[in-house]
Amino acid sequence: MPEVILGSGKRPEQVAGIVKRMLPHSTNILITRADAAAFQQVRKLEKRAEYHELSRAITIHRDHTTLGAGRIAVVAAGTSDIPVAEEAVVTARIMGNDVEHLYDVGVAGIHRLMSNRAVLTNARVLIVVAGMEGALPSVVGGLVAVPVIAVPTSVGYGASFNGLAALLGMLNSCASNVVVVNIDNGFGAGFAASLMNRVCHEGERPNQKSKIKNQKSKM
Amino acid sequence: MPEVILGSGKRPEQVAGIVKRMLPHSTNILITRADAAAFQQVRKLEKRAEYHELSRAITIHRDHTTLGAGRIAVVAAGTSDIPVAEEAVVTARIMGNDVEHLYDVGVAGIHRLMSNRAVLTNARVLIVVAGMEGALPSVVGGLVAVPVIAVPTSVGYGASFNGLAALLGMLNSCASNVVVVNIDNGFGAGFAASLMNRVCHEGERPNQKSKIKNQKSKM
Amino acid sequence: MPEVILGSGKRPEQVAGIVKRMLPHSTNILITRADAAAFQQVRKLEKRAEYHELSRAITIHRDHTTLGAGRIAVVAAGTSDIPVAEEAVVTARIMGNDVEHLYDVGVAGIHRLMSNRAVLTNARVLIVVAGMEGALPSVVGGLVAVPVIAVPTSVGYGASFNGLAALLGMLNSCASNVVVVNIDNGFGAGFAASLMNRVCHEGERPNQKSKIKNQKSKM
Amino acid sequence: MPEVILGSGKRPEQVAGIVKRMLPHSTNILITRADAAAFQQVRKLEKRAEYHELSRAITIHRDHTTLGAGRIAVVAAGTSDIPVAEEAVVTARIMGNDVEHLYDVGVAGIHRLMSNRAVLTNARVLIVVAGMEGALPSVVGGLVAVPVIAVPTSVGYGASFNGLAALLGMLNSCASNVVVVNIDNGFGAGFAASLMNRVCHEGERPNQKSKIKNQKSKM
Amino acid sequence: MPEVILGSGKRPEQVAGIVKRMLPHSTNILITRADAAAFQQVRKLEKRAEYHELSRAITIHRDHTTLGAGRIAVVAAGTSDIPVAEEAVVTARIMGNDVEHLYDVGVAGIHRLMSNRAVLTNARVLIVVAGMEGALPSVVGGLVAVPVIAVPTSVGYGASFNGLAALLGMLNSCASNVVVVNIDNGFGAGFAASLMNRVCHEGERPNQKSKIKNQKSKM
Amino acid sequence: MPEVILGSGKRPEQVAGIVKRMLPHSTNILITRADAAAFQQVRKLEKRAEYHELSRAITIHRDHTTLGAGRIAVVAAGTSDIPVAEEAVVTARIMGNDVEHLYDVGVAGIHRLMSNRAVLTNARVLIVVAGMEGALPSVVGGLVAVPVIAVPTSVGYGASFNGLAALLGMLNSCASNVVVVNIDNGFGAGFAASLMNRVCHEGERPNQKSKIKNQKSKM
Amino acid sequence: MPEVILGSGKRPEQVAGIVKRMLPHSTNILITRADAAAFQQVRKLEKRAEYHELSRAITIHRDHTTLGAGRIAVVAAGTSDIPVAEEAVVTARIMGNDVEHLYDVGVAGIHRLMSNRAVLTNARVLIVVAGMEGALPSVVGGLVAVPVIAVPTSVGYGASFNGLAALLGMLNSCASNVVVVNIDNGFGAGFAASLMNRVCHEGERPNQKSKIKNQKSKM
Amino acid sequence: MPEVILGSGKRPEQVAGIVKRMLPHSTNILITRADAAAFQQVRKLEKRAEYHELSRAITIHRDHTTLGAGRIAVVAAGTSDIPVAEEAVVTARIMGNDVEHLYDVGVAGIHRLMSNRAVLTNARVLIVVAGMEGALPSVVGGLVAVPVIAVPTSVGYGASFNGLAALLGMLNSCASNVVVVNIDNGFGAGFAASLMNRVCHEGERPNQKSKIKNQKSKM
Repeated sequence: MPEVILGSGKRPEQVAGIVKRMLPHSTNILITRADAAAFQQVRKLEKRAEYHELSRAITIHRDHTTLGAGRIAVVAAGTSDIPVAEEAVVTARIMGNDVEHLYDVGVAGIHRLMSNRAVLTNARVLIVVAGMEGALPSVVGGLVAVPVIAVPTSVGYGASFNGLAALLGMLNSCASNVVVVNIDNGFGAGFAASLMNRVCHEGERPNQKSKIKNQKSKM
Repeated sequence: MPEVILGSGKRPEQVAGIVKRMLPHSTNILITRADAAAFQQVRKLEKRAEYHELSRAITIHRDHTTLGAGRIAVVAAGTSDIPVAEEAVVTARIMGNDVEHLYDVGVAGIHRLMSNRAVLTNARVLIVVAGMEGALPSVVGGLVAVPVIAVPTSVGYGASFNGLAALLGMLNSCASNVVVVNIDNGFGAGFAASLMNRVCHEGERPNQKSKIKNQKSKM
Repeated sequence: MPEVILGSGKRPEQVAGIVKRMLPHSTNILITRADAAAFQQVRKLEKRAEYHELSRAITIHRDHTTLGAGRIAVVAAGTSDIPVAEEAVVTARIMGNDVEHLYDVGVAGIHRLMSNRAVLTNARVLIVVAGMEGALPSVVGGLVAVPVIAVPTSVGYGASFNGLAALLGMLNSCASNVVVVNIDNGFGAGFAASLMNRVCHEGERPNQKSKIKNQKSKM
Repeated sequence: MPEVILGSGKRPEQVAGIVKRMLPHSTNILITRADAAAFQQVRKLEKRAEYHELSRAITIHRDHTTLGAGRIAVVAAGTSDIPVAEEAVVTARIMGNDVEHLYDVGVAGIHRLMSNRAVLTNARVLIVVAGMEGALPSVVGGLVAVPVIAVPTSVGYGASFNGLAALLGMLNSCASNVVVVNIDNGFGAGFAASLMNRVCHEGERPNQKSKIKNQKSKM
Repeated sequence: MPEVILGSGKRPEQVAGIVKRMLPHSTNILITRADAAAFQQVRKLEKRAEYHELSRAITIHRDHTTLGAGRIAVVAAGTSDIPVAEEAVVTARIMGNDVEHLYDVGVAGIHRLMSNRAVLTNARVLIVVAGMEGALPSVVGGLVAVPVIAVPTSVGYGASFNGLAALLGMLNSCASNVVVVNIDNGFGAGFAASLMNRVCHEGERPNQKSKIKNQKSKM
Repeated sequence: MPEVILGSGKRPEQVAGIVKRMLPHSTNILITRADAAAFQQVRKLEKRAEYHELSRAITIHRDHTTLGAGRIAVVAAGTSDIPVAEEAVVTARIMGNDVEHLYDVGVAGIHRLMSNRAVLTNARVLIVVAGMEGALPSVVGGLVAVPVIAVPTSVGYGASFNGLAALLGMLNSCASNVVVVNIDNGFGAGFAASLMNRVCHEGERPNQKSKIKNQKSKM
Repeated sequence: MPEVILGSGKRPEQVAGIVKRMLPHSTNILITRADAAAFQQVRKLEKRAEYHELSRAITIHRDHTTLGAGRIAVVAAGTSDIPVAEEAVVTARIMGNDVEHLYDVGVAGIHRLMSNRAVLTNARVLIVVAGMEGALPSVVGGLVAVPVIAVPTSVGYGASFNGLAALLGMLNSCASNVVVVNIDNGFGAGFAASLMNRVCHEGERPNQKSKIKNQKSKM
Repeated sequence: MPEVILGSGKRPEQVAGIVKRMLPHSTNILITRADAAAFQQVRKLEKRAEYHELSRAITIHRDHTTLGAGRIAVVAAGTSDIPVAEEAVVTARIMGNDVEHLYDVGVAGIHRLMSNRAVLTNARVLIVVAGMEGALPSVVGGLVAVPVIAVPTSVGYGASFNGLAALLGMLNSCASNVVVVNIDNGFGAGFAASLMNRVCHEGERPNQKSKIKNQKSKM
């Protein structure tokens, strides 16, 4: 499990201070919604730190053990949805998953989605990111037999009401394998997908002793 | 143009009384949201009256002249959406259109929609009816190059908020050829589709003298 | 995969008619939101049919193969939430899962929840059902390291706005392993939990050929 | 069909880059919600590029073939609604239509609207743009026998809730020939109106082979 | 000033009991939202009691002194709005006003309104009642130079949200002489209009000693 | 009647340009929501122009004829409500009324209101301005027998939702003499109050020929 | 502390069954939202059971020890608010408080409230119940220096939105001593008021060992 | 009682001016939502003035008499909730209370809350501050037998709707001892808690003569 820091609302030195305390005992660290200035500070502490510009995430990814049983696919409807999708990608990767993405497959161009179906059917868990009408999870959900995590985004204008339209659409999905997270919550989707994708042989039970220490660090 | 009567909130004799006054000078009459009792009364006045049980519409269709230039397709996502779809069908037919329908093609089963694409591509105007997440119009809109009238329905529960989720989804459609009418307003969709489908040779202008006398009769 | 029929809005004979067509080629059938009258009809067709009064579900459970890798725990906050929780239980069981439940553990009596922690930590997937303020999933989410599916219910009055308060609470959960389904959607939670719990050895990919034929049958 | 680019959220060079790729094979190009800086870049690529300041649209209009059967009228209630109305005008023009506009005819000054009725009755399709109470489409709808596309705007304050009041008003229009698009969506109205106005002789079917490639480019 | 009793939620004997206590010292009594059973009881106490079926009001109108300076016009958009309009009419009449009404003049048939303009211009105060999009007050407001009290009604369906659309429309009216009361509040409109219409010579001040004892009796 | 110009959204020269055209034939001019820069321009055209800083209104008040029959009282609950109240004061004054104001009389300090009751009872029309819970109009309405125009303001935070709480409170006032205008609409309140206060001897009818030319100029 | 049972949604025998189990070890029992049939069953078990018709509460009040330090006053605005107010009264009484009530003191008749001020100033805690605009708690709050618990009720129509208007009004109260509970939650107000009113000498701490066993029984 | 000034919306000199007038006759003064510039001005007037950076409050605390009977505990869920919690702390302290705080005890980490239970059980009144899902007051409420004042904060994003989710959650709390104040209203919570905590021997009544002069100063 990586340590997770919510970058927004923290000054660069504050972020660096938290990272400094974590570095000795945490192998992987994820800082969400951070800016380039925070990255400059973190970089000084650990050379392997990377800045993911699209998602505005900083990662310190030192342990690359694969923990996921299958592949996680992250699918996004429009270009404007990519930052949220990338936050999910970065989160799932640092949590030890093989992640594939498929972008720009909005439902108004269904052919493009259909001609890339292999991405969908090769995944054990899917994350589907969409703003505006938020219809993509329902279409994707109908094409696969695995869990689909729908992420509404605040992309849109007017009656999108900052993501409310997409959120309601996803909650009312007619595909039964769709579950939903908060608007723009790419991190949460990546986190939950990683748990769903954990290796788990028949009869085995996940080790409950390792409580998720960092999961309340979001906000 | 047919005369249109909103049946809901009127007693059978009231409906019959209005029909009686209209019969001498109106060839076609449409009564929406009427019940079987109203139909019994109307039937006594005109043997050609028909009751459309699914849509709860009564029609007196005496003049069958075709007024539409092309075909109107009415597409519905789920079984529960059919009553609203049928109201659109009945309305478009009595307004002189060739109408084809395609039901039970929800987006979670995209293959069924795709294997019936001919219905979509043969239409000059489409009416797409859906409740819950209301995603169907966006998918259909992306498959055709003609106007799509989206009709949200109150089908759903919980966060569908009686059709609000579907309505917002349709207003935020990423397909640019989608326009929207009120929740459950199959009549309005059929009416507007009929106007869009009118025969209109290049350069010709519609005859404006025949103002739409009945268009305010809804409610 | 069981066949799933939404019972609400269908007459007993209609339900029985659908079941009759399914019986020859479907081993397991689930009918949600059905009444005792529908059950009487279904019982005549198949003696093994059972009626689950709390959840108002009918099951024809002929193949009892275990398909789940671990256990699914269904947790409910209040007595009034039990019908929704039971819908999740019945769904998860007919989909081949070992299901345990823990009821009446609202957050205002946190001791009762804490003294039953074994139910939580023994599960590979959790379904947490709550109305009113919908706080239980956050507390449970913090106690386990597996996915938690939160189900808001319409239980409450006044400012609960028929489940809206619980829904918003769950979407804003500070526990990152919480995903959400529609208000009162016990079936959807049981369905998604079953997919998350599927046996899946490392490297193995789920068989995508068996598309979920029935998942759009909800509503 | 023109190619359509959504300018908002793109840097001038990005817009110019997309235009550059399109120029060899697209005759007409429309860039919505763009600024003067983007125009400067586009102008360097094609001298015929024009900037429409009110609507903030850039057009490269090289093929002026008329594709519309009749005239499209764009009607706006108040001065503040003109930018949205102009977006509809620019869109309809580049899609090959004869467009006439009528501005500043709010319903509180009904005489001005009535004394300009010829604009309304000469149109085959109308686009009616209004903020605040959004009442104009209902009045206009009652004066014509052709489709009316209502465009709510975010003009107003207080209980207009950024266009929600106008949107709800239009969805509840008592005129049956009114269909609605999203708040401030002048482009969508112009696009849909153009499809409705296409030349279509009796019996002819629109050519479905030319799928709308660009219609999903909005947002 | 009449005494006012809100009939809804009171049993016939309760209404009669209140009337009995009032009769000795009140000349005029108005009971709103009452049923025929309550009227039977009241009739036994005072022969001059009248039941107004459309508005469901009971009046005991014994003093017919004219108190209004001019005429009050009550205008209603649709047939379904008439009960609310009639409540305003009955209220204004028992408060000593000359009341004229004009019904069925919805904005989609603007000609009918325009050809009855004399009703509007002869009034000193107007009450305008409308459901659905609630556009009529704006049109009427622009035709007169006197106060217009707008009454939204719950008439409509779907996105009318039980009168919310009409209410928001009226609050955002572009006519500056429009003020608004609660949904379906015909009584309040009639009451306020009566106060606005009181005889008041220049320099004279209304007698403030007679505090409105009954004005809090609504609900 | 003054000419009215909405200043917001117009540049100083635009405002001055409109004023210049009006000056020859309008005696009184009101410019609402204007800034000091606009005032500088207007001042050059007419020395008698005044800037009302609190309400941000510019007035050119050349004809001081009294047109009101009685006094208009403007009452405000809190200090933050004063700008809206002052807009009402300025509007009512330029429309020929004797205006008195009473500020800082919120309902939580009822004694201050009660000890200034003379201001209330001396008025023929009252304008009551309040944000937050918007309770003041109900209290004032119960103390007088004349019309009360309630103006909700956007003053508040959190659950005031930018004036929605105050607006709903006023629409549900238990005082029957309360009518409501849009949030922050001090101008509309002053305008409507002026019409209510017009001199009108018994039997006399207002001169309808002078239609309100400027009343649609708001926004 | 009494045991508390929520009666709504339970059959008479169920209520009686729970009471039977409680009687041996609980001195005082409160059953909220119960009907006369449930009372009949409970009466058989304990002769001292009483039915409070207005509040629909059943009490078994065997221990009458006074636990409150001062008096609790319950104030209600309108007649329709009394059932909720009475639920608060019954709850506070069975929890050992001296309770006084003051009903029918709506803010539109402020004199009646002012002439009964002794009831307010004699109380150590106040519960103020109001529907519609919910203004009463602000006025009362300004008259006392003790805590005021505001209870919005669903009394009203139209824009009261089932108590939402009153709830928002109370949350935005300009009196700082006002706290709020859920719509129609008379029980919660009575319960919280009782805790606030507990005898507590300086320096003394409440006995924390007696955890509130029954406080989660509401719903 | 301290004098209270709302700092937001006032310039530093305005704040200082008010303080100057108060200093001669008020011992304690609280200025909420003030900035450092205002503090500079106030400091010049009174050396004992302090600036509380987290809560942005200025205090002049000259009389330190203890007025509270027990301790007030202020509990906050997340780091971002601390400014609101601190406003409550500062308010309660200047009103003469012994205040203890417990921060960073969100419900997703229930162990941390449980291991600090002494803070909860030692308090006579609790203030619980939380954003996002607002679940903490319910958990805390179930652990104590004293009043809990819940303060929702605007902390969160997406479906938190600026604190609405937390507010609704708290209003629907299943713990009966929870009462609620407005979003981010730390001051109101501290004020009400202070009143609840006042020393009050059995039989004693609070002194009502000292009406709360400053309680309407909020906003």
